[in-house]
Amino acid sequence: MRGEIISFEGIEGTGKSTQIQYLQQFLADQNIEAQTVREPGNTYIGERIRALLQNDAAADNMCPETELLLYEASRAQLIREFVAPRIAQGQWVIFDRFFDSSVAYQGAARGLSTEIVQILNDFAVQNYHPRLTFLLDIDVNTAFQRLQQRQTAKDRIEQESPDFFEKARQKYLEMATAKPKRFVILDGKLSSEDLAAVIREHVQKIFHF
Amino acid sequence: MRGEIISFEGIEGTGKSTQIQYLQQFLADQNIEAQTVREPGNTYIGERIRALLQNDAAADNMCPETELLLYEASRAQLIREFVAPRIAQGQWVIFDRFFDSSVAYQGAARGLSTEIVQILNDFAVQNYHPRLTFLLDIDVNTAFQRLQQRQTAKDRIEQESPDFFEKARQKYLEMATAKPKRFVILDGKLSSEDLAAVIREHVQKIFHF
Repeated sequence: MRGEIISFEGIEGTGKSTQIQYLQQFLADQNIEAQTVREPGNTYIGERIRALLQNDAAADNMCPETELLLYEASRAQLIREFVAPRIAQGQWVIFDRFFDSSVAYQGAARGLSTEIVQILNDFAVQNYHPRLTFLLDIDVNTAFQRLQQRQTAKDRIEQESPDFFEKARQKYLEMATAKPKRFVILDGKLSSEDLAAVIREHVQKIFHF
Repeated sequence: MRGEIISFEGIEGTGKSTQIQYLQQFLADQNIEAQTVREPGNTYIGERIRALLQNDAAADNMCPETELLLYEASRAQLIREFVAPRIAQGQWVIFDRFFDSSVAYQGAARGLSTEIVQILNDFAVQNYHPRLTFLLDIDVNTAFQRLQQRQTAKDRIEQESPDFFEKARQKYLEMATAKPKRFVILDGKLSSEDLAAVIREHVQKIFHF
């Protein structure tokens, strides 16, 4: 039995990390081993790329094309080195953001063409697509309020303007509406317990347990 | 007056660096300021990518897709941050390898499709194409003998097999034959003085001085 892929999408502050923890525990209760991955990351090469993309003040003049290509470079390595062997062994992989984020952020928010983003996504991920994608949606004002409350320093992308995140949010909603079989749109203002319950129901329905 | 771009291509050990020095001096004698660039490199981001691509033993398991995407990420930054402003100011830029190398190395030698390499090249370089490309051609045995005589440690790509370089060499020759207006094929076994003279003649003819 091959493993499955589930992804969580949404702008900053929507509660993805909390829901991923709930889901991982729920899957463990069903004796399903699930790995959570973040992009860029989870491989040596990906973590090196992450440092350059997110936490390097000297790279502040990075152009949008380079940003996209670096995300895709990390993604290509993540798929081949980390995801593919685990899926083949029957493990599940939960993505804390996946290729839809490149369409929303590098495409809509940075202004690169959706076409080139999709070509690069296909090149990087091959056929490793999620069966189920949860879009946690909240308005940008609420997202910003939640971000302010965090104690950690903001990375290069978290420092962008509300308008930037609004473009990403609208693109996420557009993709989710266009692909209703894969996407589930969830109200990120619900309590984390309520969200976790809805997510469990969808997972049980789609994967039949 | 916008500046011009000239590129030098060829496998390792063909004498590109020596010829670039000669050409830069010749252009300086004509009061043309020329910058030489190498890929990846010449920007902070490019040098960080170079370290990961060429001189990091922990990155030895890099997949071909990631290798290509990293070269293109560096290239996109190089064009926008370094090349475009200099060309606009009338400076010339000499590439010690440019996008044709991705077709030869990541395409033919690594086995990625030429189509995707060309899509990525176009995305990275926009319309910043060389007017003139010198392909320094030597057989792979000679190239390997020259590499052995170097005192410096071999990088990740220089450690590849003769078969790898033969594929790159044949792809270079194929591209040069297909685009005779841009490419000049030169015998890398000629003396460096003879090569420099032939290169000067071509530059004078193409750029009318």
